[in-house]
Amino acid sequence: MNQQTPPAAAVEAVARIKQALGPKGWLEDPADTLKYRTDWRGRDVGEALLVARPASTGEVAEVVRVCAEAGLAMVPQGGNTGLVLGSIPTEPRPAVVLSLDRMTRVRSIDPDNFAMVVEAGCVIKAAQDAAAEAGRLFPLSLASEGSSTVGGTLSTNAGGNQTIRYGNAREQVLGLEVVLPDGTVFDGLNTLRKNNTGYDLKHLFIGAEGTLGVITAAAMRLMPAPKGRETALLAVPDPAAAQALLGRARELSGDTVLAYELMPRMCLDLAIRHIEGIADPLSAPSPWYVLVELATASPIDDLRAKLEAILAEAMEQERVTDGVIAESEAQRAALWRIREEQAEAGRREGGGVACDVSVPVSRVAGFLARAEAMLREQEPEIRLNTFGHMGDGNIHYLILRPLAMAAEAWQQRSYDLVDRLNGLIAEMGGSFSAEHGIGAQKREDLVRYAAPSRLTLMRAVKAAIDPANVMNPGKIL
Amino acid sequence: MNQQTPPAAAVEAVARIKQALGPKGWLEDPADTLKYRTDWRGRDVGEALLVARPASTGEVAEVVRVCAEAGLAMVPQGGNTGLVLGSIPTEPRPAVVLSLDRMTRVRSIDPDNFAMVVEAGCVIKAAQDAAAEAGRLFPLSLASEGSSTVGGTLSTNAGGNQTIRYGNAREQVLGLEVVLPDGTVFDGLNTLRKNNTGYDLKHLFIGAEGTLGVITAAAMRLMPAPKGRETALLAVPDPAAAQALLGRARELSGDTVLAYELMPRMCLDLAIRHIEGIADPLSAPSPWYVLVELATASPIDDLRAKLEAILAEAMEQERVTDGVIAESEAQRAALWRIREEQAEAGRREGGGVACDVSVPVSRVAGFLARAEAMLREQEPEIRLNTFGHMGDGNIHYLILRPLAMAAEAWQQRSYDLVDRLNGLIAEMGGSFSAEHGIGAQKREDLVRYAAPSRLTLMRAVKAAIDPANVMNPGKIL
Repeated sequence: MNQQTPPAAAVEAVARIKQALGPKGWLEDPADTLKYRTDWRGRDVGEALLVARPASTGEVAEVVRVCAEAGLAMVPQGGNTGLVLGSIPTEPRPAVVLSLDRMTRVRSIDPDNFAMVVEAGCVIKAAQDAAAEAGRLFPLSLASEGSSTVGGTLSTNAGGNQTIRYGNAREQVLGLEVVLPDGTVFDGLNTLRKNNTGYDLKHLFIGAEGTLGVITAAAMRLMPAPKGRETALLAVPDPAAAQALLGRARELSGDTVLAYELMPRMCLDLAIRHIEGIADPLSAPSPWYVLVELATASPIDDLRAKLEAILAEAMEQERVTDGVIAESEAQRAALWRIREEQAEAGRREGGGVACDVSVPVSRVAGFLARAEAMLREQEPEIRLNTFGHMGDGNIHYLILRPLAMAAEAWQQRSYDLVDRLNGLIAEMGGSFSAEHGIGAQKREDLVRYAAPSRLTLMRAVKAAIDPANVMNPGKIL
Repeated sequence: MNQQTPPAAAVEAVARIKQALGPKGWLEDPADTLKYRTDWRGRDVGEALLVARPASTGEVAEVVRVCAEAGLAMVPQGGNTGLVLGSIPTEPRPAVVLSLDRMTRVRSIDPDNFAMVVEAGCVIKAAQDAAAEAGRLFPLSLASEGSSTVGGTLSTNAGGNQTIRYGNAREQVLGLEVVLPDGTVFDGLNTLRKNNTGYDLKHLFIGAEGTLGVITAAAMRLMPAPKGRETALLAVPDPAAAQALLGRARELSGDTVLAYELMPRMCLDLAIRHIEGIADPLSAPSPWYVLVELATASPIDDLRAKLEAILAEAMEQERVTDGVIAESEAQRAALWRIREEQAEAGRREGGGVACDVSVPVSRVAGFLARAEAMLREQEPEIRLNTFGHMGDGNIHYLILRPLAMAAEAWQQRSYDLVDRLNGLIAEMGGSFSAEHGIGAQKREDLVRYAAPSRLTLMRAVKAAIDPANVMNPGKIL
């Protein structure tokens, strides 16, 4: 809780919110509110006058009105799984955390319209399950899908593993319901495919990390449910081969590539070393690998034939030197586990710094080569684990501490290395935050790397929609 | 040209623009500027002090700066093929038409990144051709693609025939370069798939019909080029059968449906009556038809097998009563001609009023039934030609004048019928302007049917970005 005594207006506002929401609608005791104030990675704990847990859009609007009147900061929160300090209070100013965790309903689902309307607090996994029950696919899939919510995922425009096929969170949205910073409800909830009636305002709120309003519900597009899937781990000589293969895989498969994950040998080494039950699926080590997955909604599509055609051509062209195709769901899971355990394996390996960067898909190989040369010139003994969504040009760039370097020296050194990496990324037309957003953590990077015209325009939009700066202050801008 | 003598500031601004652009960069003689001031449908001719034809982003910025300083209205213009009076001057205030027709370059094309950067004045067909030459598909396809430009298409967020597969114009955009109303250049041109670094501002300008700035270039996503295609005209008993078939076609085809066009018998009757060389492709008339097309990028995909599986099931379920599959490119073209000649056939049939509406895909059949009953109750003798992009819930709703009604009486009557139709659309969660936008023509409809919270927010955004209201005034808002 706040160290200072809150001003009288804040005390009164909190009392009004409590009354409006009823006993189930708020938490105040510091022990009860701790998890709402704690960063997912445990780096920071914020302070809050109250955690408000409204159960309806009307209640959200009431909380926002009261906070706005009293000048209290609001911090909208979904699953609180963000990685950039975006969903906890980080400013000294008195704040209310506005959790959507009681708004979890699937309001409607319409398989013939390939659409569902779901409340912001609905966990991604629950949305996936509801769609599957209706014979459809909810096309967002994230590592954190058991905890992250629809509202949080849209507020950060998360991507995930299937972006190459379906796009980011943004691309799944047909309409939004948002409570604006003054408490009015923006009613943009529709499930239309074509609707050119003025500015498409929903895109302002998607990826705005709660700084322009509170997303309370979303109309999401659905896809036909997958009926067939093929997964393979391919050994490739270098990232350039993987990059060249990607275009051919999209062509030959009829654009059914669902995931295309690049991994260096380091991924396998770390997973085998630290994670129980993981073994090398291939007989000899390779410097690089691609985990590729195809999926189709058609029961009469011969995906295996497509995968084999891709592999046959790639081996002839020496883009692929070896590979294994999953012959069962268990084998498929085992291949994916190598990729999915990287966060844990990296943690167990010890200190390192993680960047989440992107470049154009055609520049991934060039970027990896230039970045490694540049970093090694600075620090010859660093170890790199650079893996991720090659199909989207998105690399999770982990720089591991040189084994001989002390942790303290490393911390200072790593800042410098990350700065140099971000500089190269900017030079190559890339992004220093591909998936994770800005939050409170990367604000300085944004000022440093964003074009001035973008910053000016972003500030103008923020000032127009949230002139009193009550909505998640200190995030992004 | 303006009837009134323009104020001195305007005269001076025009002189400055002429000097900045050089002799090829402007037109002033009323005869020369006529086509830039004339509505595509010929309903209106606007007035302009000058048509500025800048050849670079820098020149656009210079024109905008000069106009902004002098308080002159600017009307950005692409191919001037819009249907809602959005790209010609419509206000009494002195205006400069800002044509992008000299900015037609493909700046770069990167097949491995599935992306190209193209200037706003590039005609859609030219962009398609450039992509095809690089072995890729530029996934926008419009009836007006021989005249409409990339900038105009993005400014109106046009859809077209392949929206069900690739989305609207908006979904193809990776980045934008825009000259803002004060003449600064917004540099948002990148070709990244993942980039979560603050508000995604490009979406403000897409579909804004030039009211927030001038799009000068766009980074567009490309797709693998189609290698196989199957096209069929299917006879269906009613729209409900067509609607139920759509979901199954998406499933069984592995989501390779490229177009799904609904047509009533009236479409065939009008095309056969008015257009030379069109005959009924089927042996007996059907009340309704679907023109369906599948396409794949995979040379090893058996699309014919998929189409036949869809038809076999549909005929067994009596959703389809008859059909013809195109066996050659000529047959395919003949089937598409029935659909594409509807505008011309309707024109030759005589007076009518055209609405461009959408509802959720699952409500198309219900909407058509309710709308027809409602309109016939008002005017039993009207004839309806209601066809279009069923796959997107988008119907081009033509109400043809009753044969016995005089043209003058019809005009007044038709306003009332359109109002009633729009009322029903609103009640069913639909859009009164699915593809065509608002322009100057549908502003009253927007005020009538948009939620007040949307209008307020749109006005706030306009005021923040174009406080002096110099950018295409009188359009949308």
